[in-house]
Amino acid sequence: MSTEAFDAVDVIVTKRDGHRLSDAQIDWVIDAYTRGVVAEEQMSALNMAILLNGMDRAEIARWTAAMIASGERMDFSGLSRPTADKHSTGGVGDKITLPLAPLVAVFGVAVPQLSGRGLGHTGGTLDKLESIPGWRAALSNEEMMAQLDDVGAVICQAGSGLAPADRKLYALRDVTGTVEAIPLIASSIMSKKIAEGTGALVLDVKVGSGAFMKDVARARELARTMVALGTDAGVKTVALLTDMSTPLGLTAGNALEVRESVEVLAGGGPADVVELTVALAREMLDAAGRPGQDVVAALSDGRAMDAWKRMIAAQGGDPDATLPVARETEQVLAESDGVLFGLDAYAVGIAAWRLGAGRARKEDPVQAGAGVELHAKPGDVVRAGQPLMTLHTDTPERFARAREALDGAVVVAPAGTAVAARSLVIDRIDA
Amino acid sequence: MSTEAFDAVDVIVTKRDGHRLSDAQIDWVIDAYTRGVVAEEQMSALNMAILLNGMDRAEIARWTAAMIASGERMDFSGLSRPTADKHSTGGVGDKITLPLAPLVAVFGVAVPQLSGRGLGHTGGTLDKLESIPGWRAALSNEEMMAQLDDVGAVICQAGSGLAPADRKLYALRDVTGTVEAIPLIASSIMSKKIAEGTGALVLDVKVGSGAFMKDVARARELARTMVALGTDAGVKTVALLTDMSTPLGLTAGNALEVRESVEVLAGGGPADVVELTVALAREMLDAAGRPGQDVVAALSDGRAMDAWKRMIAAQGGDPDATLPVARETEQVLAESDGVLFGLDAYAVGIAAWRLGAGRARKEDPVQAGAGVELHAKPGDVVRAGQPLMTLHTDTPERFARAREALDGAVVVAPAGTAVAARSLVIDRIDA
Repeated sequence: MSTEAFDAVDVIVTKRDGHRLSDAQIDWVIDAYTRGVVAEEQMSALNMAILLNGMDRAEIARWTAAMIASGERMDFSGLSRPTADKHSTGGVGDKITLPLAPLVAVFGVAVPQLSGRGLGHTGGTLDKLESIPGWRAALSNEEMMAQLDDVGAVICQAGSGLAPADRKLYALRDVTGTVEAIPLIASSIMSKKIAEGTGALVLDVKVGSGAFMKDVARARELARTMVALGTDAGVKTVALLTDMSTPLGLTAGNALEVRESVEVLAGGGPADVVELTVALAREMLDAAGRPGQDVVAALSDGRAMDAWKRMIAAQGGDPDATLPVARETEQVLAESDGVLFGLDAYAVGIAAWRLGAGRARKEDPVQAGAGVELHAKPGDVVRAGQPLMTLHTDTPERFARAREALDGAVVVAPAGTAVAARSLVIDRIDA
Repeated sequence: MSTEAFDAVDVIVTKRDGHRLSDAQIDWVIDAYTRGVVAEEQMSALNMAILLNGMDRAEIARWTAAMIASGERMDFSGLSRPTADKHSTGGVGDKITLPLAPLVAVFGVAVPQLSGRGLGHTGGTLDKLESIPGWRAALSNEEMMAQLDDVGAVICQAGSGLAPADRKLYALRDVTGTVEAIPLIASSIMSKKIAEGTGALVLDVKVGSGAFMKDVARARELARTMVALGTDAGVKTVALLTDMSTPLGLTAGNALEVRESVEVLAGGGPADVVELTVALAREMLDAAGRPGQDVVAALSDGRAMDAWKRMIAAQGGDPDATLPVARETEQVLAESDGVLFGLDAYAVGIAAWRLGAGRARKEDPVQAGAGVELHAKPGDVVRAGQPLMTLHTDTPERFARAREALDGAVVVAPAGTAVAARSLVIDRIDA
């Protein structure tokens, strides 16, 4: 006879038939899956049943807790400062973490930003920073703590010890059409953030063509689910819903995005990147108990730039080194006069990915210099023949497939057409 | 780049999101699963999506055709007689195939009964016949054809060449909580029956506690789905919905059921077994184009018994040999006077299984003599202390767990309580 507390088929059938999973069933199935007792094909069937039949708030909280319990937890309580983290659900040209972490650190809040690499059309923060000569993503826990105490900001690779059940589950969901389940997305993100031990967490939930969530209603449901999970776990959590129908800023690609981030830290940069950096910094400082700071001043007076340079240098990077540049470029020209009406984020993300900025499989390398540079944004007046984008790659045979991705992505309306100003921050959700 | 026509995730997402699978998607996914290109965890997610979102008639037909195409097809067109087969969805004490096949053969219709072994609480036809000394289940195609031409009836093991995709899929469904999907049950049964090449098919769809389908509505839906599949594939198909709330006949167990079948072939036997054997024989003869035969006479005048003996002997069995008897027996006694109101089929099936008549894993052996013998059926008047059942096993340590299974299975009502006569055949469904 088996010594297991439950039978996997009974757990699957419970959810398949629309019932709640008990706490004990959830604890067992996550643990048994991590141990390999629940097989991949069994967890896959359960994931599909969860996707189609849902989980209630208590089930999602327990599922998240079980994933946290599958690994180690970090503890920042020994730091002399409060901690605040930010998580974005991923978008095209989303380099906000780069200026944001040092900016928040300026005000005495520690930012432990455990990040990942890019997969698919959205870039990875670690891939971007690795375009800085010498910079390294892997830190020991001791190095990370020392840097948080000294510099106040760290952006590094998440250790494999946090929520290992989530890593196994994510790989499974990726190949079984079960990524899009809100309970599973929310618990995947929040298990790692809660295990990481941050005191405050600001979620940037992207919505639009370049985001995982294409419509506002589902993005809001995801945001609410995650805010509830964080709150229930004692993490001060707030979420902003932000527009991802067009790329953030004027660049998508690793070194290209670092360059743009440095512009923001120097007090310049594209208005939308500055706006979102400032909005998220305010939320993080509020959540960490340091409200009312003049974050805009810290961008213009060099304090954020100083923190950035110390943060990069602490991880072996040379903040003043010349960034890599792609060997080849090609321009995409406007086909007619008018006003740029639409510039699809998803298409730009796919183009940057195909140019070499992203990877198809997690073991693939990325090109530091590859990507898409935009010369106009929606609302700008354009003339036929004017460059709208520059495509960058080391491997020019990739231009053709990048252009294919951009087919139909640029919409130029007749001159005089009114382009409604789009609000970058669509909604704010707190506990 | 992959040379596959589809991506497994796209196929899963199509059904997950409630859309129809195209013919090409179905053909590909069954073929790619058989080749191992679609992984077990991917097929498992697809099965769960099919279970929860359904398939329409055309999708089920294509799915069935794709499973047939995964293997070989048999061809009975060279026989001098029409063919008719019967399939039961499985019940407790369901030994009907044993008297039925020779009975139908008496009237010049060939019965190619490809059968399986028992798994769980329902017995397997091959396990029952293997209790006859010398009888062998495995025949070559040539042996099977020769026996059909000569004797007219064969009950043997299905070759592994028929619908191999179904075998792989069934093993997966068994461990992933996706057995209960009507499209998958119907296509599993019908793919093998259509590939087998029978000209006519009578389905005995069981309904009740001892059956796979617990309620009449779902049993009727399954029956309609299968009749449609058979009809579309050119097989003359009809289904009877029959009651399985209480065991068929007075025995559940391998040799015990053979003994009871021989009683029926000798013109006796329990009334319900005779009734169902006669009803199914008439349906098979009608479907095979030989209506209006006096099947009752063939049971009483020895013609069916002759056909049985020839069928058993042709497969090496000695039809006159003494059948194995279990080493130990125990009786279950009535606890009060009254009228037997209920005798739960599922509980009796589990008890017989635990006594050694069935197997938990497909590689387990079965005990030829083990099982449950009933001494009363619902509607019978009983007295306290009277034997209601005899439990048979070679391994007396099994008695306790068999008795546990029977706890609450016997309901004795006060004397004089009217027990409504239950109709064995609940409904008939044809094209």
